[in-house]
Amino acid sequence: MHKAASAASLQGFFAPASAAIVGASEDLAKFGGRLCKAVFGFGYGRPVYPVNPSRAEIFGAKCYPSISALPETPEHVGIIVPAGKVIAVLEECAARGTRYATVFTGGFAETGTETGIRLQQEVRAFAQRANMRIMGPNCNGFVNFVDGFAMTNTAAIRDGPRPAGNVGVVTHSGGLGQINVMWRAQEAGVGISYQVSCGNEADLDAIDFAQFMVEGEATDVVMMALETIRSGPRFIALARAAAERAKPLVVLKFGRTDAGQKAASSHTGAMTGADDVYNAVFRQYGVIRVTDCNELYELAKILRTRRVPAGPRLAALTGSGGHAVLLADLGASVGLEWSTLSEKTVHELQQLMPAFAGVSNPIDLTSAQTGAPKLFTDAMQLVARDPLVDALIPILVVPTIAATDAVVELHHSTEKPVAVLWTGFCPQDSNVTPATLVARGVPTYRDALTCVQALRASVDYGRFLARYRSRPSLQVMMRPDGASADRARAILALAPETVGENLSKEVLALYGLPVTREELARSAEEAASLAEAIGGSVALKIVSPDIPHKTEANAIRLGVSGAARVRAAYAEVMEAANAYKPGARIEGVLVQEMMLGGIELMLGVTRDPVFGPVVTVGRGGIHVEILDDVAHRIAPLSRPDASDMLSELKIRPLLEGVRGAAPADIAALVDAIERLSWLAYDLIDDVRELAVNPLVVRSDGVRVVDALIVKTNSTEYANA
Amino acid sequence: MHKAASAASLQGFFAPASAAIVGASEDLAKFGGRLCKAVFGFGYGRPVYPVNPSRAEIFGAKCYPSISALPETPEHVGIIVPAGKVIAVLEECAARGTRYATVFTGGFAETGTETGIRLQQEVRAFAQRANMRIMGPNCNGFVNFVDGFAMTNTAAIRDGPRPAGNVGVVTHSGGLGQINVMWRAQEAGVGISYQVSCGNEADLDAIDFAQFMVEGEATDVVMMALETIRSGPRFIALARAAAERAKPLVVLKFGRTDAGQKAASSHTGAMTGADDVYNAVFRQYGVIRVTDCNELYELAKILRTRRVPAGPRLAALTGSGGHAVLLADLGASVGLEWSTLSEKTVHELQQLMPAFAGVSNPIDLTSAQTGAPKLFTDAMQLVARDPLVDALIPILVVPTIAATDAVVELHHSTEKPVAVLWTGFCPQDSNVTPATLVARGVPTYRDALTCVQALRASVDYGRFLARYRSRPSLQVMMRPDGASADRARAILALAPETVGENLSKEVLALYGLPVTREELARSAEEAASLAEAIGGSVALKIVSPDIPHKTEANAIRLGVSGAARVRAAYAEVMEAANAYKPGARIEGVLVQEMMLGGIELMLGVTRDPVFGPVVTVGRGGIHVEILDDVAHRIAPLSRPDASDMLSELKIRPLLEGVRGAAPADIAALVDAIERLSWLAYDLIDDVRELAVNPLVVRSDGVRVVDALIVKTNSTEYANA
Repeated sequence: MHKAASAASLQGFFAPASAAIVGASEDLAKFGGRLCKAVFGFGYGRPVYPVNPSRAEIFGAKCYPSISALPETPEHVGIIVPAGKVIAVLEECAARGTRYATVFTGGFAETGTETGIRLQQEVRAFAQRANMRIMGPNCNGFVNFVDGFAMTNTAAIRDGPRPAGNVGVVTHSGGLGQINVMWRAQEAGVGISYQVSCGNEADLDAIDFAQFMVEGEATDVVMMALETIRSGPRFIALARAAAERAKPLVVLKFGRTDAGQKAASSHTGAMTGADDVYNAVFRQYGVIRVTDCNELYELAKILRTRRVPAGPRLAALTGSGGHAVLLADLGASVGLEWSTLSEKTVHELQQLMPAFAGVSNPIDLTSAQTGAPKLFTDAMQLVARDPLVDALIPILVVPTIAATDAVVELHHSTEKPVAVLWTGFCPQDSNVTPATLVARGVPTYRDALTCVQALRASVDYGRFLARYRSRPSLQVMMRPDGASADRARAILALAPETVGENLSKEVLALYGLPVTREELARSAEEAASLAEAIGGSVALKIVSPDIPHKTEANAIRLGVSGAARVRAAYAEVMEAANAYKPGARIEGVLVQEMMLGGIELMLGVTRDPVFGPVVTVGRGGIHVEILDDVAHRIAPLSRPDASDMLSELKIRPLLEGVRGAAPADIAALVDAIERLSWLAYDLIDDVRELAVNPLVVRSDGVRVVDALIVKTNSTEYANA
Repeated sequence: MHKAASAASLQGFFAPASAAIVGASEDLAKFGGRLCKAVFGFGYGRPVYPVNPSRAEIFGAKCYPSISALPETPEHVGIIVPAGKVIAVLEECAARGTRYATVFTGGFAETGTETGIRLQQEVRAFAQRANMRIMGPNCNGFVNFVDGFAMTNTAAIRDGPRPAGNVGVVTHSGGLGQINVMWRAQEAGVGISYQVSCGNEADLDAIDFAQFMVEGEATDVVMMALETIRSGPRFIALARAAAERAKPLVVLKFGRTDAGQKAASSHTGAMTGADDVYNAVFRQYGVIRVTDCNELYELAKILRTRRVPAGPRLAALTGSGGHAVLLADLGASVGLEWSTLSEKTVHELQQLMPAFAGVSNPIDLTSAQTGAPKLFTDAMQLVARDPLVDALIPILVVPTIAATDAVVELHHSTEKPVAVLWTGFCPQDSNVTPATLVARGVPTYRDALTCVQALRASVDYGRFLARYRSRPSLQVMMRPDGASADRARAILALAPETVGENLSKEVLALYGLPVTREELARSAEEAASLAEAIGGSVALKIVSPDIPHKTEANAIRLGVSGAARVRAAYAEVMEAANAYKPGARIEGVLVQEMMLGGIELMLGVTRDPVFGPVVTVGRGGIHVEILDDVAHRIAPLSRPDASDMLSELKIRPLLEGVRGAAPADIAALVDAIERLSWLAYDLIDDVRELAVNPLVVRSDGVRVVDALIVKTNSTEYANA
């Protein structure tokens, strides 16, 4: 794989010493014309040369017949020539020493045609051969507000450069990224550092551009709208780099519903639908996922302040009782809390406003505030100082200019997050708007739900950072004691493709997962004596590579005790197996200790095409598919990660003990998940699918009661 | 109770022959000053008289010293005098023959003080005595855009009357209703008929105003933001009146969370019922619930066209591939479908655009559309004609003026719902905006999620109307055969407060619910002979008014067969009951047929303080609380209602049979729910709580296996 772009390596891409446009035109009906108009209209402090053999001048700039005719080597060249001529232009650029190109031309892999795909492969191969870095093809270029350079045709920059801000935009689509995200963010008052619409990604991809932004000084938040993630591991590396710097990635990832359709296909496939895996990775690495484009910049408004609430305790101030009710409800509905204000704050508020018998929160200053602007200002300041308040929401409805200035002043005088909710307008001056306040740095929201959702995302991001910082780095994370990948591989090598329960458990046991006491009996007599040795009542289960689903075959007997009954059960199980699948290869009957009581969970391992080894924890038993109560993570896992998985499960309260039941041994469960994750990490090339179902969780530990491994078969392996 | 307002009775309230303002002022620091400025600034074609003994003129209008001094009787009087003087002014109005008053003054029940509450009771009593209808106190009045009359002080009308539309606004809070809802809706292009902020509701309440709007010609959609619903039955009557006319009610009901309920009750002294019950009533009667104020008018944009999609099949057209991906994902995520276009449409699209090898949906016309405006227009028109398309989403990003005209033309030339998604701006004229299109009647959305959510609400409303029209009217709905409320009451009258399993089942059986075969044994011998008569294995359960939870007492034995074992089980159950609660009154031991297999549900009846008898269906067993898989409705229910309840349950697929299991007898289940709902309706004054748990549902019917009724005790009854 091409080496990853880094901040240093793309600086010349975004701010070249000089640039050129091949396929330049003045004809606005052509892409090249709209491109030149946008690029020259945007301006740049360094030379940008139009190239077109049939023109002498373009929009007042001297036009050159070819790259080689230029007075200097352009560091970055924009290309809009027919698809078949792109490679020739790239060759010319490389010969001249150009380091970067943006290929706008379409007609490549997006057509789905053989020619298109071949042409794109040629671009990719060329980039590697010539050591050039190429954006596109079939892309809409980029805007660099930091250095004032644009290489794009979008109408969104027709008014020239807006002031740069600290929020970056990375998308595949041009229209979506430049209008729905960039332009809308700017209209809302959010300044942009760089905007990139990276198209087909023959060479440079969305991860490269985001990495550049994360590593650079200019960007503190990256907003992404992604149709694909080309490499799971590189995306995780990006997310880790962002987490190290506490720079949030806010991502709109498409494909939520395709995954849902695929999900129903197979038993465990249903639990690792690709989209669930994206959610899992995003949660694991602190990537904030949103649903629509506007949410990207609504969240960026607060995240770009880089203030993270210390906790979920809000306070809000308003002069409108209706707004207090609205916000109280919505704040709580997204899982935030309304702080019980400190006695000191309550006392001070009562001093400010003697009619204030009881102070509630959201704080309703009532219409008394209308005639007394200082009341609102003073109340905000003193509530902001309350140590029991983690974030503050001043509410504006039809404020005076002075009231809008007061919230800006509040924002700058405290270090706590301030999110303003402003639902109306400024009667004194209709040019003073929420966007004005945002442009002055204050996160300002039009709607209450958006406001509290942004705060909630901010609180969650703070929690993620704490969890992230508490976990060991990947380098230091250790395989559990005794885990032996080599011995596990040796067992799997000799096993059939569908590995039976007993061998599957041996593999699990090698990684330290506690399994039931059990042994394989090859005769009724042997079964009886094994049962006696195990003691108590036992389970008998067929072991056959041809019968993976023992229950379906009725080849399983539970709670059997006494030698005679064990012998009879042995015979029944053998008979059922033969009846179910005559001629099935039968290894014997497993005689196994019965696990009574406890909660049944399932653990699973699958292989995601993007991210690799996925570990799943969920409710066991037949309700798995219906209740959809599962959590996924990418292996390997730290303990905080494993523990965080459990907090996602709806049945989590069952583990804590309900109706007087003893709490489950959660430490043992977390340990088992961590161990399984290392197994998944080590053996993912050998294991296509692994299911522990059930894992019985009791107050005195956990036990693998049944397990099944399906090996990667040779065909799949070759294609993997 | 005061008789309900009707359209006719409130016409004079909203458009009086003449009006007056008592407490008129020119001082804008006073409410009376802002009120006069707003009212006179708004204008009205009929006289509005300011009344103030100390002024000769107010804003150029002759001012009168008193109501009695006026040249004519004002039909409606606005009052802003101190709380203690309100009744005296009302008396004066009544003496003069005034029919309506709006009391803006605060200081009533919202203060929570004894004086405030008493003053409000006086206003209420006065209204009834004098046969005047009064809005408020502590309200912000109303705006009537239909007749051009305002009685309010809001800055939201400072630019004078905007054109009336067909959407009404009813809220408790003034600021919220007038700014977040009315003004924002108007800014978004949605015209308003009437806006009402009804405050403390001493007399006229939100339901009265909404009823006026529903009954009148001017309003087709009512948007409501409610802190309380004063009467469940009257609200249901309103919802039925709206459903009869296919006029949607879109409601933001506060109090979803504890924090919200607390805030609402301190704001207007509101009574709050269980939020789940509101959801149930809204679903049952087609009321559309939203979460934040902006959703009210976003939904109204499409609902006010009164076009209801025939089904959930969408088609979308765009020139931006990124938008196609975004919309495809979000449409499916809210449960809408992307139509498989008819062959004819596909063929016609290919004629339009020869490069169109495969036509997908959302339809991506690609950038070919940029230079060819007619392509977009023609494609829209022919897709709109496709019988497989129920609703259409044309997507605009940076359209020409002609393209915006084309979607307006499309909207007017088809009868199908058209929802435009316009994410950007019009580069030719920045004054042409989404609000422009909305003002021209076309539902136009800024964000994709909002767009598909509005369409989804519209589809759901269509489904509700179909369900509503298929069910019998309340007058025709019949008690099930044989249901005898009198006999049930007779049984309950003699039973202890906690009615035992056997008597509870007798009551259920009177309403035709199938119960297990069972009889009460008073000796071990009797138990054995009853068991033999029932046949197969039986359950033995203690019957004692002092032991409502038999399992907890371990006084239950399942699957017992054979006379000896039945006798032993009888002894064990008696012993366990005595050990659990020494001295408990014991009626005997129930010997009951065992129900093997099937799915365990629970049915319940409770009493909601606002809506009365609530029927609940959900998952049975100990997981009820954790999984929260229940549906509620207000009794009595029709079969379509009962059936709709089941469709809400997550375990619904289990009922349809999974993994080869036979489907459950859903007809029998629906019948049982309907019967239970009549029991609830008839006996709600006698029954505080009823629980059937489990109701076993099998492929051959349903059976009540256990049941418990708790009677309303006399104290409660007195307070009920």
